[in-house]
Amino acid sequence: MSTIKALKWRYATKKFATDKILANEKIDIIKEAFNLTATSFGLQTLKMFIISDKDIREQLVKHSFQQRQVVDASHLLVLCIQDDILDSDVDNLFNSVSNLRQTPENILEPFRRDLKVMMQSMTKIERQQWSTKQAYIALGNLMTVCAVEGIDACPMEGFLPEKYNDILNLKERNLKSVLLLPIGYRADDDQFATFRKVRKPIKDAVIIL
Amino acid sequence: MSTIKALKWRYATKKFATDKILANEKIDIIKEAFNLTATSFGLQTLKMFIISDKDIREQLVKHSFQQRQVVDASHLLVLCIQDDILDSDVDNLFNSVSNLRQTPENILEPFRRDLKVMMQSMTKIERQQWSTKQAYIALGNLMTVCAVEGIDACPMEGFLPEKYNDILNLKERNLKSVLLLPIGYRADDDQFATFRKVRKPIKDAVIIL
Repeated sequence: MSTIKALKWRYATKKFATDKILANEKIDIIKEAFNLTATSFGLQTLKMFIISDKDIREQLVKHSFQQRQVVDASHLLVLCIQDDILDSDVDNLFNSVSNLRQTPENILEPFRRDLKVMMQSMTKIERQQWSTKQAYIALGNLMTVCAVEGIDACPMEGFLPEKYNDILNLKERNLKSVLLLPIGYRADDDQFATFRKVRKPIKDAVIIL
Repeated sequence: MSTIKALKWRYATKKFATDKILANEKIDIIKEAFNLTATSFGLQTLKMFIISDKDIREQLVKHSFQQRQVVDASHLLVLCIQDDILDSDVDNLFNSVSNLRQTPENILEPFRRDLKVMMQSMTKIERQQWSTKQAYIALGNLMTVCAVEGIDACPMEGFLPEKYNDILNLKERNLKSVLLLPIGYRADDDQFATFRKVRKPIKDAVIIL
């Protein structure tokens, strides 16, 4: 399937087939694709939950405006940001670069220092907003990967993050939930699958110079 | 090329081949992929510039910390958000839905009303932040589409948006620049192409429940 054909095939799946489970190979692709998402400076201040447990998802659906795709999909992805970004996160990144690429510390040091200064110049809320943008990159990447892999998905901002944080014990992990992506296979009778895709004409969306 | 292989192949290309230009077919894919990006409620409060003009890009590179990929890449994509979101934007969306899907107005009306109320409940700055998140979805989508299509790209937050807004006359278009993505083909001697990709171990990035 061509890339554009895949993007046209995808849609925000509202009704999933409850009896179709993603193969482990597909879950491995999702895991790796998430981890390969480009993030600003490569800091990766994100984590992703992959939840197949139905009991947990039944608790979560109550805080997702009863949108059943949270439970009915094969798996629920919950994209989370770190509660904060510390000097140690910057050090972990640069230590990995140093180990993997054998880059001398005298070359890395100015970048390491500047990134710490940049992060410290923001408030904690601004650091969370910064990480949240990275989570949206991951969402964009994952939706496209799903489409290309023939996996249905439903991007969701509509849930109560604080309730998710409680149920998933995110506070003790220093995480905050920001986005959901139930994934699996569309139900045969999902009426949304039949709807024509609504988009602006390309000439209204793209400007050529 | 498998999806994961493509994601491993991609990297933030710092040095582009100045003599390799993307074919029109590839540019058409980029246009359509951008326009097919999922956005919250389908509102598409984004626009994308595709700039091949070298004179304009020479002006822009001065406000991009002299990062030459802005000029040297085959094309420069500039992702922009609308300056604001108005009732008329919501009406345009729902009118399109109505026309394309023949959905009766009595079904659309509550959604139309609620979305206007939601947008009006935010400040203008919050509406811009909301649109900016959607631009990051587009960036994630485009980077993955580029990888799958064998196109090199360099995601960039590092530029002076106000200067870009001036040079591209964005104020009179009611737009604001938020992200850059130079696209094209890597130079044979881009040393960054040889660097090993730095990522956390998957077990530190993904939690299974």
